[in-house]
Amino acid sequence: MQSDIYTASVELHAKHGGKLETKSKIPLTTKEALSLAYTPGVAEVSRRIATDPSLARSLTLKGNTIAVVTDGSAILGLGDLGPLAALPVMEGKAAIFKEFGGVDAFPICLTTQDPEEIIAIVKNIAPTFGGINLEDISAPKCFMIEERLRAELPIPVMHDDQWGAATVTLSALINALSLRGLTKEEARVVVNGVGAAGVAIGRLLHVYGIVNTIFCDSKGIIHAGRSDLTKEKKELLDGSALLLSEGSLADALAGAHVFIGVSKAGALTQAMVRTMALHPIIFGLANPTPEIMPDEAKAAGAFIVATGRSDFPNQINNSLVFPGAFQGMLRAGIPQFSNAVFIRIAEALARSVNTPSPEKILPSMFDEGVVALVSETVQG
Amino acid sequence: MQSDIYTASVELHAKHGGKLETKSKIPLTTKEALSLAYTPGVAEVSRRIATDPSLARSLTLKGNTIAVVTDGSAILGLGDLGPLAALPVMEGKAAIFKEFGGVDAFPICLTTQDPEEIIAIVKNIAPTFGGINLEDISAPKCFMIEERLRAELPIPVMHDDQWGAATVTLSALINALSLRGLTKEEARVVVNGVGAAGVAIGRLLHVYGIVNTIFCDSKGIIHAGRSDLTKEKKELLDGSALLLSEGSLADALAGAHVFIGVSKAGALTQAMVRTMALHPIIFGLANPTPEIMPDEAKAAGAFIVATGRSDFPNQINNSLVFPGAFQGMLRAGIPQFSNAVFIRIAEALARSVNTPSPEKILPSMFDEGVVALVSETVQG
Repeated sequence: MQSDIYTASVELHAKHGGKLETKSKIPLTTKEALSLAYTPGVAEVSRRIATDPSLARSLTLKGNTIAVVTDGSAILGLGDLGPLAALPVMEGKAAIFKEFGGVDAFPICLTTQDPEEIIAIVKNIAPTFGGINLEDISAPKCFMIEERLRAELPIPVMHDDQWGAATVTLSALINALSLRGLTKEEARVVVNGVGAAGVAIGRLLHVYGIVNTIFCDSKGIIHAGRSDLTKEKKELLDGSALLLSEGSLADALAGAHVFIGVSKAGALTQAMVRTMALHPIIFGLANPTPEIMPDEAKAAGAFIVATGRSDFPNQINNSLVFPGAFQGMLRAGIPQFSNAVFIRIAEALARSVNTPSPEKILPSMFDEGVVALVSETVQG
Repeated sequence: MQSDIYTASVELHAKHGGKLETKSKIPLTTKEALSLAYTPGVAEVSRRIATDPSLARSLTLKGNTIAVVTDGSAILGLGDLGPLAALPVMEGKAAIFKEFGGVDAFPICLTTQDPEEIIAIVKNIAPTFGGINLEDISAPKCFMIEERLRAELPIPVMHDDQWGAATVTLSALINALSLRGLTKEEARVVVNGVGAAGVAIGRLLHVYGIVNTIFCDSKGIIHAGRSDLTKEKKELLDGSALLLSEGSLADALAGAHVFIGVSKAGALTQAMVRTMALHPIIFGLANPTPEIMPDEAKAAGAFIVATGRSDFPNQINNSLVFPGAFQGMLRAGIPQFSNAVFIRIAEALARSVNTPSPEKILPSMFDEGVVALVSETVQG
């Protein structure tokens, strides 16, 4: 089945020569059309923008165009395959931007993997774009790159592996906790995996007010006694209201209400699920194979299960967020993303599910109006 | 009239929000389509490219996509207006690439104007692209940037202000000399202006075999006694078969058969034309106002007049070359441009005019088959 999809995908890509094309909005079939779209007419457009740079947003593609930037260092779950292998993924992302959000987007795959060089290049190519979507850049450098670009560029910058994932996860959690009858103050949440997604999920949970959190990496619970903590891990620890000490993921899960895995296939066992609080909420977001398969989780007592996959209920899918989020930022001319924006989106998406149930805690990206909802939420 | 075009152009740009859009070649309206165009199917495309990078040409947009790169340092005839003001011009160029050549193209407008930084950035963003069209980058740095990128990148690089201009000029000159009854060995040619276009025109003339050449810059004739010559000017001097000494443009023109101006409005007077050989050939390519207006040149004895404008006969227009040239390079997978390719294109374009006359020495970019002709010529 999976191999059929792989073969069909390669054939589709070969048939079309990739997925994205550029297109003139204006037919250039006459000298007159050319004299307006290009020289001599375009000279006046250039002069006006030179006088008032803000006009670039209304007179060029800048106002509706996003760069999808990667260095190929963390492609899907495949790891560091470099910029050429990243291109079909970035192209797909750009196609989704346009098809779902009406936002023009273009892939930029960089040869360098050096953070300072990535920052310098993105700043240098920024004039063409109204926003920057960072994609598949490995942790921990992705944090610094995003932080610096947000501070140093006048256009919105978002690392989707962080904030797309975190926003949809929070949205799903809002409905899941409500169905389970837990307040955000009561919920005890274990996050396994502290890469790009795990860090952003933790940050957003804390800002939202879910602070009974335990974070685990490959060495177990993140606690103050460890000497190997990155800046981001220390910050997550500081944001937690729990007093944590040494232990494994299994130790962390005892009595917890929620497991959020952004780690790897098989990280969660049925035995662990059984030690959690009654009717636990299990988000196994590893791709393509979740931390625990939904049927196994259910058999071990899980009340609600979500994964990253479209072939199970409750898909936690970044595509619910990024097309509408960038559309809203561009339309309203908002200079930069903030945690508050992501939380507003998460709440709006959660509310948009008419009658949440354990099998339906999120809207689908194919639901009519979901992009408009996100966009309008961003625009305030 | 001109101001009407300017107003209409600004309105057109405002109405459409620029000219270029991105588009998915594949409708993404179902989960199944998404699973092939994006995850999970796309993972296999990435894996295959990681194993064999040459597959990127057939499985992604790379095989048919050009970057139109500028630093905004020499926009049209407007000068250094920076990257934002350059964007509508680059967007127009990209639109022409697609509309005329079927080649996808995307504008990249850089903040930096430092040659080494430009080279580093273009090399870093190159994985996405099958070719690089450099545009509106000022001389003399444009020469070094192109030379370095050609040597250091595995994809074709062409500075269109140089080679587009030079190729069409040579093409026009081939038919003009034939009509005038002059061989390339006999023709005495004065080139006024030694910027990007002037240098490339000179280089191509010499390789083609037109070597009775005199080059003038703002200080007059370029000769061996001058201590202010750049590397490029020295090279042009070395390529000339004439023994040159100090003098003005007027001195250079005495007895010459051909004037090629890539300088500025009004640089050529009727008095100068009258000192040239009988029935001179006058190419006044300054934009938007030529070195001499066609009616004045004719009144002073000119046999054939060409300009850069679409509202006079014999438009010397880069658009005759670049869409077909890049299409041919991409289709044949030719690694780099060469002078030989440009000369072949110039000859093919000249031959394509069925019955050349003083009012018709070039095809029009709207002529059926002209892009295919250039493309096939490139492909050999």
